[in-house]
Amino acid sequence: MGSDLPEKGLVLLSSWPSMFGIRGVIALEEKGLEYEYREEHLGNKSATLLRLNPIHKKVPVLVHDGRPICESLIILQYIDETWPGADGAPCFLPADPFARSQARFWADFIDKKVYDAGTRLWKMKGEEHAEAKKEFIESMKLLEGELGEKPYFGGETFGFVDIALVSYACWFHTYDVTGGLNMEAELPKLMAWVKRCKERESVSKALPDPLKIYDFLLSLKKRYGIE
Amino acid sequence: MGSDLPEKGLVLLSSWPSMFGIRGVIALEEKGLEYEYREEHLGNKSATLLRLNPIHKKVPVLVHDGRPICESLIILQYIDETWPGADGAPCFLPADPFARSQARFWADFIDKKVYDAGTRLWKMKGEEHAEAKKEFIESMKLLEGELGEKPYFGGETFGFVDIALVSYACWFHTYDVTGGLNMEAELPKLMAWVKRCKERESVSKALPDPLKIYDFLLSLKKRYGIE
Repeated sequence: MGSDLPEKGLVLLSSWPSMFGIRGVIALEEKGLEYEYREEHLGNKSATLLRLNPIHKKVPVLVHDGRPICESLIILQYIDETWPGADGAPCFLPADPFARSQARFWADFIDKKVYDAGTRLWKMKGEEHAEAKKEFIESMKLLEGELGEKPYFGGETFGFVDIALVSYACWFHTYDVTGGLNMEAELPKLMAWVKRCKERESVSKALPDPLKIYDFLLSLKKRYGIE
Repeated sequence: MGSDLPEKGLVLLSSWPSMFGIRGVIALEEKGLEYEYREEHLGNKSATLLRLNPIHKKVPVLVHDGRPICESLIILQYIDETWPGADGAPCFLPADPFARSQARFWADFIDKKVYDAGTRLWKMKGEEHAEAKKEFIESMKLLEGELGEKPYFGGETFGFVDIALVSYACWFHTYDVTGGLNMEAELPKLMAWVKRCKERESVSKALPDPLKIYDFLLSLKKRYGIE
């Protein structure tokens, strides 16, 4: 693929505030795999990134033995299918086809609803902001309902949906501030689940400081010219 | 799930012009499975549909032994994983994890790009229409490039991406008319692939008449008040 990438092994192209990139880090850490992490600057994407993901031009890209895999949920499934029993950890997706379909459904729901509503919390004003706030909380409450009394979305084990959602946890402070929310009070079970996930080394290692995310957002708003 | 659904067996809730529902029909036919088809009227959705898919309230829903599976690509994977060797047919997804990731990438690409651009072809006017036309053709040309000289996206066998895209074929005439396109001239290899796919009983059975789709669109535009 070019001389800047090793012929063998794993490289993750990511950007530290990206919840999609964070998913890749958690998955690689959970499987106990060795990998090289390469930071991409979203305002100045590397030629390598553009060559590896010419269609979407986005992080994360996982490069395995020189071949690129794009889109975070597809990367999670690739890692799970390539190293199903790595480091003795259970698979991210359960074995039963129906349970797999439900996990895929909720991960897809997170991608369709949470990112978009979360972004509109800081991009929009007035009625559009109120609408985003309503959608965001509704989506999170549906997720809290799906979690129910289980320790993880994956049941007794940390799995596919857990990785897909906990990658957002570093943004929750920013959503609270920009959305006028109090997620701790409104989503107590989900916030207890976040704490449970953060006890895992994979998660605590992958998630940046929420205050750094908020600073990042301020610079992003400046770049977009948003007051 | 309620007395109107059988405890055992397969039921597909769909709507005949839905490319997403058509994917479900093709998949079930390819696997040689027996199922009941239930037509949903999108202006008047059944209580059963709303109960089975309370989150998105959309077709298709596949009900298997009373349990609902939603979202068409998730349904395809469920069918593939539940009946991997049914009727002697090969699996929709290949066995190799990297090949699987690439198939998932292109199916996801179709969902992210083709439906949206195709809808804007008939919803938008002026500059927005021109933009949709450009995006639609660019996306289809990328797909034609991915097909290359292979008989199917799945290589020698009709697979996951083939089902995901050929479900749109009944809309191509409508895209031609509303977009001012000539897909036959602009995408000759892709159109040859459509003909190849239509030789399969599963596809010819699942795809409605393109002229009926155009009539359906006219009624849809009327409902939306679009000239």
